[in-house]
Amino acid sequence: MIVRPRPTFLQLFFVMRGSVVPRILPQIFGFAIYSAVILALARWFQLDLGVFNITPFGLVGVTLSIYLSFRNNAAYDRWWEARKLWGTLVFEIRNLARATTSLISDQTEQRALLMEALAFCHFLRGQLRKIDSVKDTRAFIDAEADTVASFANPADEMVRRMGRRANARRRAGEIDSIGFRILDERLASITAIQAGCERIAGTPLPFAYTLLVHRTAYIVCLLLPIGLISTTGWATPLFMALIAYTFFGLDALSEELEDPFGTEANDLALDGLCRVCEISVFEALGETPPKMIPAEKFYFS
Amino acid sequence: MIVRPRPTFLQLFFVMRGSVVPRILPQIFGFAIYSAVILALARWFQLDLGVFNITPFGLVGVTLSIYLSFRNNAAYDRWWEARKLWGTLVFEIRNLARATTSLISDQTEQRALLMEALAFCHFLRGQLRKIDSVKDTRAFIDAEADTVASFANPADEMVRRMGRRANARRRAGEIDSIGFRILDERLASITAIQAGCERIAGTPLPFAYTLLVHRTAYIVCLLLPIGLISTTGWATPLFMALIAYTFFGLDALSEELEDPFGTEANDLALDGLCRVCEISVFEALGETPPKMIPAEKFYFS
Amino acid sequence: MIVRPRPTFLQLFFVMRGSVVPRILPQIFGFAIYSAVILALARWFQLDLGVFNITPFGLVGVTLSIYLSFRNNAAYDRWWEARKLWGTLVFEIRNLARATTSLISDQTEQRALLMEALAFCHFLRGQLRKIDSVKDTRAFIDAEADTVASFANPADEMVRRMGRRANARRRAGEIDSIGFRILDERLASITAIQAGCERIAGTPLPFAYTLLVHRTAYIVCLLLPIGLISTTGWATPLFMALIAYTFFGLDALSEELEDPFGTEANDLALDGLCRVCEISVFEALGETPPKMIPAEKFYFS
Amino acid sequence: MIVRPRPTFLQLFFVMRGSVVPRILPQIFGFAIYSAVILALARWFQLDLGVFNITPFGLVGVTLSIYLSFRNNAAYDRWWEARKLWGTLVFEIRNLARATTSLISDQTEQRALLMEALAFCHFLRGQLRKIDSVKDTRAFIDAEADTVASFANPADEMVRRMGRRANARRRAGEIDSIGFRILDERLASITAIQAGCERIAGTPLPFAYTLLVHRTAYIVCLLLPIGLISTTGWATPLFMALIAYTFFGLDALSEELEDPFGTEANDLALDGLCRVCEISVFEALGETPPKMIPAEKFYFS
Amino acid sequence: MIVRPRPTFLQLFFVMRGSVVPRILPQIFGFAIYSAVILALARWFQLDLGVFNITPFGLVGVTLSIYLSFRNNAAYDRWWEARKLWGTLVFEIRNLARATTSLISDQTEQRALLMEALAFCHFLRGQLRKIDSVKDTRAFIDAEADTVASFANPADEMVRRMGRRANARRRAGEIDSIGFRILDERLASITAIQAGCERIAGTPLPFAYTLLVHRTAYIVCLLLPIGLISTTGWATPLFMALIAYTFFGLDALSEELEDPFGTEANDLALDGLCRVCEISVFEALGETPPKMIPAEKFYFS
Repeated sequence: MIVRPRPTFLQLFFVMRGSVVPRILPQIFGFAIYSAVILALARWFQLDLGVFNITPFGLVGVTLSIYLSFRNNAAYDRWWEARKLWGTLVFEIRNLARATTSLISDQTEQRALLMEALAFCHFLRGQLRKIDSVKDTRAFIDAEADTVASFANPADEMVRRMGRRANARRRAGEIDSIGFRILDERLASITAIQAGCERIAGTPLPFAYTLLVHRTAYIVCLLLPIGLISTTGWATPLFMALIAYTFFGLDALSEELEDPFGTEANDLALDGLCRVCEISVFEALGETPPKMIPAEKFYFS
Repeated sequence: MIVRPRPTFLQLFFVMRGSVVPRILPQIFGFAIYSAVILALARWFQLDLGVFNITPFGLVGVTLSIYLSFRNNAAYDRWWEARKLWGTLVFEIRNLARATTSLISDQTEQRALLMEALAFCHFLRGQLRKIDSVKDTRAFIDAEADTVASFANPADEMVRRMGRRANARRRAGEIDSIGFRILDERLASITAIQAGCERIAGTPLPFAYTLLVHRTAYIVCLLLPIGLISTTGWATPLFMALIAYTFFGLDALSEELEDPFGTEANDLALDGLCRVCEISVFEALGETPPKMIPAEKFYFS
Repeated sequence: MIVRPRPTFLQLFFVMRGSVVPRILPQIFGFAIYSAVILALARWFQLDLGVFNITPFGLVGVTLSIYLSFRNNAAYDRWWEARKLWGTLVFEIRNLARATTSLISDQTEQRALLMEALAFCHFLRGQLRKIDSVKDTRAFIDAEADTVASFANPADEMVRRMGRRANARRRAGEIDSIGFRILDERLASITAIQAGCERIAGTPLPFAYTLLVHRTAYIVCLLLPIGLISTTGWATPLFMALIAYTFFGLDALSEELEDPFGTEANDLALDGLCRVCEISVFEALGETPPKMIPAEKFYFS
Repeated sequence: MIVRPRPTFLQLFFVMRGSVVPRILPQIFGFAIYSAVILALARWFQLDLGVFNITPFGLVGVTLSIYLSFRNNAAYDRWWEARKLWGTLVFEIRNLARATTSLISDQTEQRALLMEALAFCHFLRGQLRKIDSVKDTRAFIDAEADTVASFANPADEMVRRMGRRANARRRAGEIDSIGFRILDERLASITAIQAGCERIAGTPLPFAYTLLVHRTAYIVCLLLPIGLISTTGWATPLFMALIAYTFFGLDALSEELEDPFGTEANDLALDGLCRVCEISVFEALGETPPKMIPAEKFYFS
Repeated sequence: MIVRPRPTFLQLFFVMRGSVVPRILPQIFGFAIYSAVILALARWFQLDLGVFNITPFGLVGVTLSIYLSFRNNAAYDRWWEARKLWGTLVFEIRNLARATTSLISDQTEQRALLMEALAFCHFLRGQLRKIDSVKDTRAFIDAEADTVASFANPADEMVRRMGRRANARRRAGEIDSIGFRILDERLASITAIQAGCERIAGTPLPFAYTLLVHRTAYIVCLLLPIGLISTTGWATPLFMALIAYTFFGLDALSEELEDPFGTEANDLALDGLCRVCEISVFEALGETPPKMIPAEKFYFS
């Protein structure tokens, strides 16, 4: 995730980090060159393209704008919902820390339960990013990390372990039914967060949208120079570059936001959010919390 | 559901699986040929269509874009809500598994309750897809599956059976009121999911929308060639094919997403979601979970 | 509510049931004839209308499209929220049936409570449709139906009666506080559904929207022929009919969806939803449920 | 709030009650006269304005339509959320009535608590409408009304009083913890409703929107006649009146809906909603409920 | 936050407080002067720019309007969600005050808990506004304020302290499990509010949007004069100023609303909302509440 102050007027045109421009340079230059070739051919053979103009593109443009606008909104909603789910995780971890330290008097058990919660966060992060996060969880649950990692769904197993621990306290008579219910509600909410994240990570936007948007955008950009030449003349490549920038820029950004759990520039800072959970848990246990992860050139991992 | 890496530039134009193109080929070629005929007639009889242009279509285009955009948003919302409901089902099954294994000590009862939950998932899938899923449920509840299948609403009966089982535990004094309440909340949530899915499956978008969108799209495409000829000349069939592609492509996709429980390429992977529930349940019971269902040419059933 | 398979290409233009066309025929033909008269007058008196064109209508068209689009979205949201509320009613009735048969052991009391719940559904349906549904409720609560019908808000009285019955069980010591709370939550949710339906039925969209939309649509359609003639010539009546169809078609549909509890073709199938509740209740009581109400020419009442 | 049957074709143009026309007559006539003056000057001095046309207004029109559309949606959302909050109040009062009559056996206490709830409704209505509603509350809590009115936030004080009364019952051993919790949840929900209403009443849309919309609309209307004259000639004032009607009509309506608690024609019928609460409470107490407030020329206060 | 009566027609053009005009004066005048220079050069060298017109900008304009509209909606949603979170805080503080004064009989403990709640509000305000609010919290928790301020997340520590205090009451036997649960739910909700505010404050809109919007807006404004000159002639600078005003005005406003916790003119009145909480708490304790913070030239801090 990029967090940086607003760039100045000049910086604006040269900032690359966080921008989608590097990803769509092929399209921008491709269509500029393509239209320059069309232009050269038309001038060379003295083709009369005056009868063509861009009016017919208006109707297609309306549909294309519906596609782009819809896809952008849907992708952003997924990104923001993913952020909300992790925000919910933060406060459920805090609630769990408060409830655990209140209801469970045995400090070893307190700590063990909360360490499992932190391991859950890191397992979930690993599953969503499709990376190996077992080494991060070892800091909290030691050798158990490898046992858990052998499960089909390690994060799910962590919640079950917390549930078993809470239940053991209930059976030991340390917490009553209401106390167990308070802890169980926290775990139910954490389970919901996991399923929500799995939903976003596992169900992309219907593939047919991607095809519709891409095909329409490419066909329009392939036909457009013919319609533009009579109006914009030698400036056609410039206009084509601008149009390709706006079409494919929005498209590339939507694609990046659609899967918010990656490690691209505009994806969520899951490392940082795990650290926020750690800080709250260690402060609740009265231990020294770790430092917040600093940004690297405005980028939070 | 199609999950596949982004196609390359060339693949983009030839991918058929997941695309709506096969379904709208009649419209694309139909209107291309139709406009070619109009064009030929106009040239043959030297009709002066110069007075017509596409400007009047602008006002109709605005309304048509409202229809298409609205219908697309509504269809996608239904699809995504359906996915959310099944995501909720996943975590409620997990919560139920955790609560059951905690609260009920008799392992036979634990297993019986959770097998009923899995049977519920498969009955619901069967009802939503209008297919016979009794054979899938037999794996979990044996001969009882046929008794349940004779009910007007088998999934509903499964929830009642789980309710009766939980209540029997309560009356036997094994779980207290709070414990019963925790299980009952899970069942209430599962009931809500079922009713939500039935709502989406049973209540299509108002039929009048379908008529309005189709009629307007067909009338516009029938009149449009007359307005286009003076501007686009011999390229008119090409433009008509493009416009038909964008109009009817969005229309066909909306129709597919409107009923998200089918087995078309862009419908939800209910088989896979049922399997996710099975994995969680069997892992919670300490048994070997089944494997995840693999994709078949990027398609998850 | 209309549920029917997609019409074929030819059916598409002749389907009347569920379509808004019959309601807007006056506008379609009215504006076609009106523009034909304008056209004839212009030709007769050889008026030069070449200076007028439809460009100025673009700015008004933008605002009109905002109105139509907004009104359509708001009306659909009301319709869909109403459907959601009734879907919630279905699952709360099912939850109530499960909770009642679990918690209350006296079978006469069980049945009495659930019959009151079904009477509630029918009273609510009657109040929302402004029809007399007392005769339907007699099937469930016999002569009590007439007593209840004399209240200012019979559905509200039904919930109070269920509340008193649940409370009597609590005072008799048959259900404990938690059991009472489970039943009370069901009743609270049912009360919320009723208030939600009353809100939609009693609070139409602000009347000023209706005026703004209608006035703008009529004024635009009255002025438009003058602007169209120079472009579309003798085809002007055809275009006016098309434009009137799209404007007033969307308008008529919005009006129909705005009050989703009526008995028009696109309104909700409250009769069917009440029957769904009956089926669940009777199956929960172990009695033979009634049959689902069949569609009449694709129409569910 | 205006609730009336759909006006006929002729009524449509003359209905004033509920319309925003009276409020925007200055703008409609002002810009018509202004454009007539521009037109007369242009004709008198034989200015050649042919070079100007309305094309450049297209780009500004796009932004203006974003403003108007956004503001309209936001204002309507506020209005509808306010209506939802009061709908929630209705059912929470009903829930409170049901819970109170169930849980509290002392009828004097029952009645006292519910009268305080009705006083709350009227105090809230008074605070939101910025009117003196103390006299309405005296009907329910007599002389206490004046004591309560001296608090900084009388409605808030009413909830505290209900809380103290419920707590007194708990301390007296009449209701148990679960019973107290049921009542407390009702009060918590009522507190939420109050804070929600205060939020809508106290936080208008950001003032900068109002400025942006108004300034852009005025500047566009001031420049537009110059661009229109070459196209619409002597009909320019007519078009300007139409455009001013659509721009400022939507603007005036948004402004009216933005603060939904006033007493303008399109504001919410808070008097009627308070009466709905009274009817439910008195029916729950077995007393004769008051009559519903009738509409005055289709207007519900 | 600005709350002021609607300005009159003349005021409208000169109001500066709350307007975004001062922030975008460089863009407005910059592009006006820039286009004047282009105009002068074109006239001086008698360049024929007649071949250029603004039609090609239509397609870019569509995409730009998608960007601006999306960004505006997203920014407003963040602003309004932030306001809702603080509205929720207000009613949770009131609920906490009611629950505390009911359930905890020791008045010193009551007061101590509620003072900690007020300190939480001020710490949260300080963290969100990135200002030092320790001095404000000293009024409520004296010297403890400095201890709390040394934590990584002081607001989080305040909730933990309230939790410990509530737990101490539970262990002392003063409140039962249900009473503890009521207090714990309030604290859980307050934790959720904090995490929600941290989410909005810490996660700006994806940086790539800012780049896309700014770059497109600047490029369009740099190219537009060339297209406009042939149509608008000497009025080009005027039009450019108007277009820059609408583009960059919406942009600047979106930027201001995107971070709603600042102290700019359109940001939320956190000082006032903290005071609202104080008033409710002190009235609940039976003490004299402080006065509401008055506006300073229509501005609420």
